[in-house]
Amino acid sequence: MDILSNNKTVIERINQYLLNSIDPNMPPSLLKPIRYFLENPSKKIRPLLTLYSCGAFGRNLDDAIPAAAAVELFHDFTLVHDDIMDKDDLRRGKPTIHVKWDSGTAIMVGDALIGLSFQELTKSPPEKLGPVVKIFSEALVKVCEGQAMDKAFETTENVTIAEYMEMISKKTAWLFKASCEIGAVIGGGNDEEIAILSDFGKTLGLAFQIQDDLLDFVADESKLGKKVGSDFKMDKKTYITLKYREMLETTSQSENYSEHEVEDLKSLEEFSKRITELGVVKMVENYVDNLFQKSTDILDNLKVAYKSDLYSIAKSLERRQF
Amino acid sequence: MDILSNNKTVIERINQYLLNSIDPNMPPSLLKPIRYFLENPSKKIRPLLTLYSCGAFGRNLDDAIPAAAAVELFHDFTLVHDDIMDKDDLRRGKPTIHVKWDSGTAIMVGDALIGLSFQELTKSPPEKLGPVVKIFSEALVKVCEGQAMDKAFETTENVTIAEYMEMISKKTAWLFKASCEIGAVIGGGNDEEIAILSDFGKTLGLAFQIQDDLLDFVADESKLGKKVGSDFKMDKKTYITLKYREMLETTSQSENYSEHEVEDLKSLEEFSKRITELGVVKMVENYVDNLFQKSTDILDNLKVAYKSDLYSIAKSLERRQF
Repeated sequence: MDILSNNKTVIERINQYLLNSIDPNMPPSLLKPIRYFLENPSKKIRPLLTLYSCGAFGRNLDDAIPAAAAVELFHDFTLVHDDIMDKDDLRRGKPTIHVKWDSGTAIMVGDALIGLSFQELTKSPPEKLGPVVKIFSEALVKVCEGQAMDKAFETTENVTIAEYMEMISKKTAWLFKASCEIGAVIGGGNDEEIAILSDFGKTLGLAFQIQDDLLDFVADESKLGKKVGSDFKMDKKTYITLKYREMLETTSQSENYSEHEVEDLKSLEEFSKRITELGVVKMVENYVDNLFQKSTDILDNLKVAYKSDLYSIAKSLERRQF
Repeated sequence: MDILSNNKTVIERINQYLLNSIDPNMPPSLLKPIRYFLENPSKKIRPLLTLYSCGAFGRNLDDAIPAAAAVELFHDFTLVHDDIMDKDDLRRGKPTIHVKWDSGTAIMVGDALIGLSFQELTKSPPEKLGPVVKIFSEALVKVCEGQAMDKAFETTENVTIAEYMEMISKKTAWLFKASCEIGAVIGGGNDEEIAILSDFGKTLGLAFQIQDDLLDFVADESKLGKKVGSDFKMDKKTYITLKYREMLETTSQSENYSEHEVEDLKSLEEFSKRITELGVVKMVENYVDNLFQKSTDILDNLKVAYKSDLYSIAKSLERRQF
């Protein structure tokens, strides 16, 4: 019931298309790290959203394959550049590009992935190109804005939950949203239908990110494919740490715990234990469940094909352990 | 007779448009460095090429203003990321973004500039959007390929002049070419006319880059706005160093100078003196002159408006000292 087995044929089609899309005549110093990254399996959540959002309106999934490749390449770019900034050593279980090569190479690879993503996008049906490129370009700006907020939070004392939600709605949810919108536009959905799928993508993206924050503390490292606790290490503000502070400030706990509690709990293990005891983990788990539920409720308003596939993506993500 | 005074009104129009194009509600950690960069005056060569290539076919320059902004933002992105990789401290006379802020900020700013550039591009006349986005996306990939080659050359012993020319045709000349092509497409030129302007842009870009290599050795630092000799410092392969080696290898000089001559001449001053004495500087100057001449000869094949403005850009660049 996981995404990979549920969508095996489609994911293989995306992987095949992606690898074939890379020009083998690229300079080896660019080609090698790009292939290294693309050959590493991933869940292909965003391209699946694009394809099924296209198929939803009766159009052949193949018409959205270049756009699906585009959203995956876009996502890959964000990972490569984020890993440099976050100083992460592992990605999908393998050394990150800036570790295996160097930061300069990782910068270039990310840039090239943006270029390749737009190149793929331009292979979309010509009559849809205008709106599709607009959605995609806006997403790129918003994702950078989200990343900028995330980075600024590292040195900001009083980040609110609202600010955090704005950050992840840009950094993570926007590309989920854009992936659905682009598929729906190519598929030929009307404005209302596009808006519903857009809302579905956004809500799913928010659920996914907060779940990700949670997994950073509680996941099995070997399955996650990266170090557990890397958010903690970087003093990242996450939904968990903010909820924890909020709890300290608004309950009687505030008498017992200082405002700088998170900094005090230096060990990841100690912090994980504390947030479990205090019920923060449970509270965040419930919130994530509600968001996943909300995303599938949104789909109820649609009468389209591939609805069960979109529904099943949300359900599979809800159950993921890594 | 320089570009700034020749094109004062148009450059002011571009500057105004560019500054207004930046959403003031962006997160301050992104907005501040972007404004810092954009407020610094530049020659606006590429947007001028786009505007005049559009005007060439009788279309209002204003129709190409978003595309002109796009090519400038694209260029700015390359500068911001290149400066990180090249460890350059100064750009246009001011501290580079990765120095004034940090590398993470500079990576994000570059990424955001790509997003903003595509956003501007999508404001081009809708009927031209398809070809224009294709040219622009391809340029982004090619520029990254050029950058990758340039970086790889730093650790490659025997780079040929042909390889070097391929590198700069991607890293520098491609955006000159694309700037002209995009303008010509928006302007409504036919295929032959677009090809001529494309060829003009490419040749001008090659001339510009080799002249740039030359200026890195001989320019007045205060005018150049960055450190003289930064290519030398980074062991960059440039047209100058390659010509120098070629000369050592193919003339009787090879008896007197080792293959590792460039490494041996540790001081920039010593090297500058040597390449002047050997006639390398003169030889490269002549080659640059020929390329500029070739670019204006290409224009002779066109009977269009704004030809004198395009011609004058080439002539102004030919005479630049920084």
